[in-house]
This record gives sequence, structure tokens and C-alpha cells, in this order.
Amino acid sequence: MTSPSVPTAPEPFRFPVAARYAGMASSPLKDIFALAARKDVVSFAGGIPDPALFDLDVVASCYEWVLAHQGHRALQYGVSEGELELREQAARRLSRDLPTHASQIRVTSGSQEGLFVVAQALLEPGDVVLVESPTYLAAVQAFAVHGARMIGVETDDDGVVPEALDEAIRTHRPRMVYLIPTFQNPTGRTMPAERREAVAEVLLRTDVPLIEDDPYGALSFSGSTWAPIASLPGMSERTLLLNSMSKLMSPGVRIGWMRAEGSILDTLAVAKAAISMQSSVVDQLTVARYLETADLDAHVATVSAVYRERRDAMATAIAPVLPAGAHVTHPEGGMFLWASLGEGYDAQRMLADAVAAGVAYLPGWSFFADHPDLSSMRLSFVTHSPEVIEDAVGRLGEVIAQHGQR
Amino acid sequence: MTSPSVPTAPEPFRFPVAARYAGMASSPLKDIFALAARKDVVSFAGGIPDPALFDLDVVASCYEWVLAHQGHRALQYGVSEGELELREQAARRLSRDLPTHASQIRVTSGSQEGLFVVAQALLEPGDVVLVESPTYLAAVQAFAVHGARMIGVETDDDGVVPEALDEAIRTHRPRMVYLIPTFQNPTGRTMPAERREAVAEVLLRTDVPLIEDDPYGALSFSGSTWAPIASLPGMSERTLLLNSMSKLMSPGVRIGWMRAEGSILDTLAVAKAAISMQSSVVDQLTVARYLETADLDAHVATVSAVYRERRDAMATAIAPVLPAGAHVTHPEGGMFLWASLGEGYDAQRMLADAVAAGVAYLPGWSFFADHPDLSSMRLSFVTHSPEVIEDAVGRLGEVIAQHGQR
Repeated sequence: MTSPSVPTAPEPFRFPVAARYAGMASSPLKDIFALAARKDVVSFAGGIPDPALFDLDVVASCYEWVLAHQGHRALQYGVSEGELELREQAARRLSRDLPTHASQIRVTSGSQEGLFVVAQALLEPGDVVLVESPTYLAAVQAFAVHGARMIGVETDDDGVVPEALDEAIRTHRPRMVYLIPTFQNPTGRTMPAERREAVAEVLLRTDVPLIEDDPYGALSFSGSTWAPIASLPGMSERTLLLNSMSKLMSPGVRIGWMRAEGSILDTLAVAKAAISMQSSVVDQLTVARYLETADLDAHVATVSAVYRERRDAMATAIAPVLPAGAHVTHPEGGMFLWASLGEGYDAQRMLADAVAAGVAYLPGWSFFADHPDLSSMRLSFVTHSPEVIEDAVGRLGEVIAQHGQR
Repeated sequence: MTSPSVPTAPEPFRFPVAARYAGMASSPLKDIFALAARKDVVSFAGGIPDPALFDLDVVASCYEWVLAHQGHRALQYGVSEGELELREQAARRLSRDLPTHASQIRVTSGSQEGLFVVAQALLEPGDVVLVESPTYLAAVQAFAVHGARMIGVETDDDGVVPEALDEAIRTHRPRMVYLIPTFQNPTGRTMPAERREAVAEVLLRTDVPLIEDDPYGALSFSGSTWAPIASLPGMSERTLLLNSMSKLMSPGVRIGWMRAEGSILDTLAVAKAAISMQSSVVDQLTVARYLETADLDAHVATVSAVYRERRDAMATAIAPVLPAGAHVTHPEGGMFLWASLGEGYDAQRMLADAVAAGVAYLPGWSFFADHPDLSSMRLSFVTHSPEVIEDAVGRLGEVIAQHGQR
């Protein structure tokens, strides 16, 4: 006997989803950040500037000034290239290392949109993009959704290894190379001048364009800064150099820019127009006003001094708790420290115990295009005080020790 | 004898450009807007709100309040979905016609980014998108750069023709249908309730998703408003409904949102994160504050009353100068009036003479996916006073008359 037919609810409508986002309802990183956001957890997971260090009063006064003096313009449509005042300020800052005219600047809504604009303008499905191993994969997701294949190139403590880059270019014929040469995310490492020259030599010889991402470069603990690879002879015309105000002034205002030369500037503007027409004119004029009237260098020096203390606290606290054979970077700026615990450790698996002990980090696997180091972790040292860092790293040490005995 | 070899300068480096932007160094529209921006020209070309009507003092006070009371949050990273306060305000407004929860809102940096997010989430290369004929092609460029093929569907004075839509769906099996049902750009036409029901019936029966773009709907001259197609039975789950603050509050702040239901909301958030991480938190919180504390309806009523006078001025001035057989729309809201001069006229060719006579418009061909009406033109009536409109339309009439004699 068959059961009587039961009326079923109609199937809910399902939108067709493009292959580029199929199965991407969320991201493992999002889950980790949710975990790390628990009140009882000291999180080293995110690259979140300490809001106590925001130059809030000055930024607020810049908004006020723009709305009082340029209000009608601030609320009106602007141009896809970006407001002239902001492009002039960007060019002025860049010209310290690399002569730059305002016409060579394209404003973007943060570096993320900058990378997306680059991908729109340059990438075809199937293209290879060479990246550092590890690199900031959450950012280069902008490349991935354009169908690009990311291939990691070997790095050492001085950044990407020129011989490995050379070989990878010959093997994979990449559309472009993506590098974060200064205070890299996730490792905090910086390419010294000689390494930059060697990398430029490879790129010039092989005629491959460079996407140079520099959101952290100004956050130097020694006071030294590094000229971008784009400033080396022959490189400026073949480099798209990206800057962001997120780490220097505010991530919430979402303002960044890129520098380029020649006809690609037109393509970048057309792509920006297709994506979002233009960036917020209010925010652009406010950032321009801030760069014109505030002392960003002094502000960044203040922030960097605080971050340096925190870097010191983390470096000091972590050294004794790492197992033999572990490797940890010693960043001279930026926001991140990178620890590789070595064979037998699994940072992803260890995370639950760390969170139970009240401390969170980002497992390193998510920063590798291929061949992940499962024992690695990224630790942001910028959000907490030295005391909190010391205490939390101590607890992390106990978790590491437990996992070492397994 | 061969000439001695002359050393040539090295070829400048050329970035590879993705096929989607090949040959798109600029756009014909950009050239037209440049022409129209001349000081001695009264331009009806752009859809530019009159800045004199901006609610500037109130908007400025909202920025001030946000920076004074939510400053640290406003300058910090937010979430890709959008700030909760703004999503709540958006849901509150939408719920007048269609019950909406804040969790069903995704904030975008204006409608343009909204359309781009939709394209990223839904479109594969080669997909067909059905659009009104004519439609706002500059916006659906977001679809075009994803490799979609736009096909125009026949319209009449009540908008898209249901039978034509039905047939086009059966012939072309589109990925989605894109409509601007209220005060459409470029025609100013509005779909009456019965037409909306007929279109919904077709979409429900054929199971094709709808992208409903509604940036102008609140700008009603009669006080009547039209519920979105998304609010008809069965439609909400299969419609992505886009709103924008650009035409109601300010295009410069670049804030819009879309409403969706179900699992596509996750995909939209992931796509937004890949494109630009999140929209400006300062701008989002300010718009939320504005929607919470200002009387947007009263402001929009004030703006609409002014636009209505200007619509009247343009309608009155243009009627006597149109040739026999011409057709002109009578918009009940929004920003645009659409005139089709009829056989023998070429609005693109006529534009140079119009500009010489001190008046500019947008030739209509650019709004057609296919089969353009070359005699058509879009006239924005919102930027100038009735007196200026009368005078300029008079001069346009002389140019039309000259071209009619050719």
C-alpha cells in the first residue's frame, strides 16, 4: 500500500549564482573572526587599528570644514578619476619617492576596490597571478573571482626570492605579479633595497607588470621608510602602485588610490565607473583636507611608536613559548607578526583550545595560494596594550606546549 | 642604398587590458557631457540634482552628530552587509510597501555598485539580460563587462509590453530581467498597477528573476507612489530591489541598498566584500541618522514640487516646437522627459548645432541595447529654472526646425 500523497510546499525560488561565487556562502575566515570577537577572548586575529589612536577630532573638523565650505560640491556627483584635491595630495606624498602628477592618480574606495579595479582592467579567466607565499589572500580574492589562478612564489626573510620569481615567470607566464614589499601582510617582512633591485631586474627582463600594494609602508618603527619598487629605474610605467588611508587615518572612510602611467589610466577610470561610478565625494574631499592641513606624518609617528611598544611586547612574550625549530618574524613596521611552529603543529586545529584559553590568532593556511604551512599563524600586535599582549601570549604558550606533547 | 639605421626609442610598456575593456578608453557619453559642460550651454544632458535643493545643513549636522557620538565606530572597519542602523532605516522605508527586515538589506556604494554586485553574483559570460527598450545603458554597463548580452524588449507608454517580454523570455532564455518601473530613465514613464501585475505574471510563470531598479520612485509629482513589482504576490523572493539615496538626499555620499530574500543574501555579501569590503562607515551612519531624524518625505516633497514646475515648463515649451509625428513622454515624477522626433531626424547629428545654439541634451541612441531610435533624445528637466528651460527649449526648437527642412 502506498502512502497517501501529501501536498508539499512549493520549492522556494533560488537565484542562479555565478560560478565565481558558487559555494561561497561565507568564508572560513569569517567564522574565525566571529569566534575571535567573543568578549572573553583577546584577539590577535584581525588587522584592526586601535580606535583609541584615531585622529578623531581632526578628522571630524575636516568633515565639518568640507561641508561648510564645499558642501554643495561634496553632496553632488563627482568624477570617476577622483576629486582633484585628493589626487594632488596623493601625488604630493608619492612624489617623495617617485615623481607623480595628480593626473596619474586614480581614487578608489579603499585598497580592496583598488585591487578589484586592477582585476577588472587586466585579468582574463585562466590568467596566472604570481603572489608571495604567503600573501594576503583575502585581498587577492578580487583576482580569484575574475577566474585568475594564484601561484605562490618562494619567500625568505627578505621577501620574494628573485630566482624563484624568475623561474615561476618562465614556467607560468603570469599576467601580473602581486607583491606587498613593505611590512607585508601576513608576515610583517620587508624587502631590503637590494632585494627590490633584484626583483625589478627580473620584472624588467621578463616584461611582466607589477601590482605593488603598499598600505603599511608609512607605519615604520625605525623611522626608515622604503621607496617602492615602482620608483626603481624603468619600473614606474609597468607598476600599478596602491596606497590606502585605512591604516594611516581610518579604515571606515574607505579611501585609497593607485598610481599608474600611460593609457592604462583610462582603462582604470572606465573600470572604476562601471564598478561604483565614483568614490564618496564627501569622504574624498575630507581626506584631501586632512592631508592638506593635518600633520599626517606626526600622527603616523605617534601611532607607530605605540605599535612598536606592542610589537616589542609580543616579540618578547612569544620567544620563550615557541617550540624548538619554530620561526618567528621580527617586523620593523606594520601590524603583523608571523610565527611558524614547525612540524607536528596544526594552527587551525589548535585554535579551539586557544580560544578556550581566551586568545585568538589567524591560522596561517589561509594566506597560501598553494602548499600551506599548517603550523603557521598570523598575530596582529596593534590592537591591545603590552600588558594584555603579555598575558594572552603567555596563555597561548600553554596551549602550544600542550599541543607539542601530543 | 639603405638609410643608416637610426636608434629608436624603446617601446613604452603597455599593460595587458582585459577584453571586457578593450577599446573602451573613454565613452561617447563622456564626450557629450564634456560638450554639455561648456559655460555657454544650458545642459539637459545629465541627471544632475539641483544642488540648491540639497538639504545641506541637515546633512552636515548628521555628519557632525555621527562623528561626535559614534566617531570611533564611524572611522573603524564595518561589515560587508552594511551598518545595522542603516539597514533598519532602509527596511522601515521599504516596509511601507513590502514587509522587510534589516537582515534582508545589503548596503552598496550607490546603485551603480548595487548593479555591479548583482552582476558579480549572478552573471556568467554569454548570459542574456532582458532590458527595456530604451533603458539606462550606462548603468547596465555593469552587466556588459561581465560578458552579458543585453536584449531590448518592446515598451509602450505603460512600460515594458508583457507579451513581448513573454516572447523574449521564450526566445532568449535570459538569466534575468532588468526593469526600472517608476519614472524610468531615460523615458520618465511609469508602469501602472495592472501592467506590473501582468509583468509579474510572466516572470512567475517563466521563473525568471527580476532586477528592479527604483532610484526615482519617491520623486512623485502627484503625491501618488507605486508599490514595487517585488511587492506583488510571489515576487519578493525572486526580485532584487535596488534603492539609492542619490536622487533623494545626495549623489555625492554614494549610498544605496538592495533588498533580497534567502540564500542569495549571503552571495551578495561575499561579492560586496570582494569588490570593496564595505561602504564608507561614516557615510552609512550619517545616512542612517538622516533617515532617522530628518523628514525625508517632506524634503522629497519640496524637491518634487520644484521639479514638477520644471517638468511643466519643459512640457509646455517643447510641445509647440516638436515636428508633426513626434512623440514626447509626460513624466509624473523623476528627472527625465523623452522625445522622439520621428523619421528623418538624427539627434546625434543635430547635437552640434544645438550646442552651437547654447543647448544640450543626450541623444537617445545610447539607451538602446539594439535597434536604436536615432531621432530620440533624453532631456533632464531638474537642473534649471523654468525661465532658463523655456528659453533654451525655444532655441532647441529652432534647431529642430532647421533640421526638419533638410
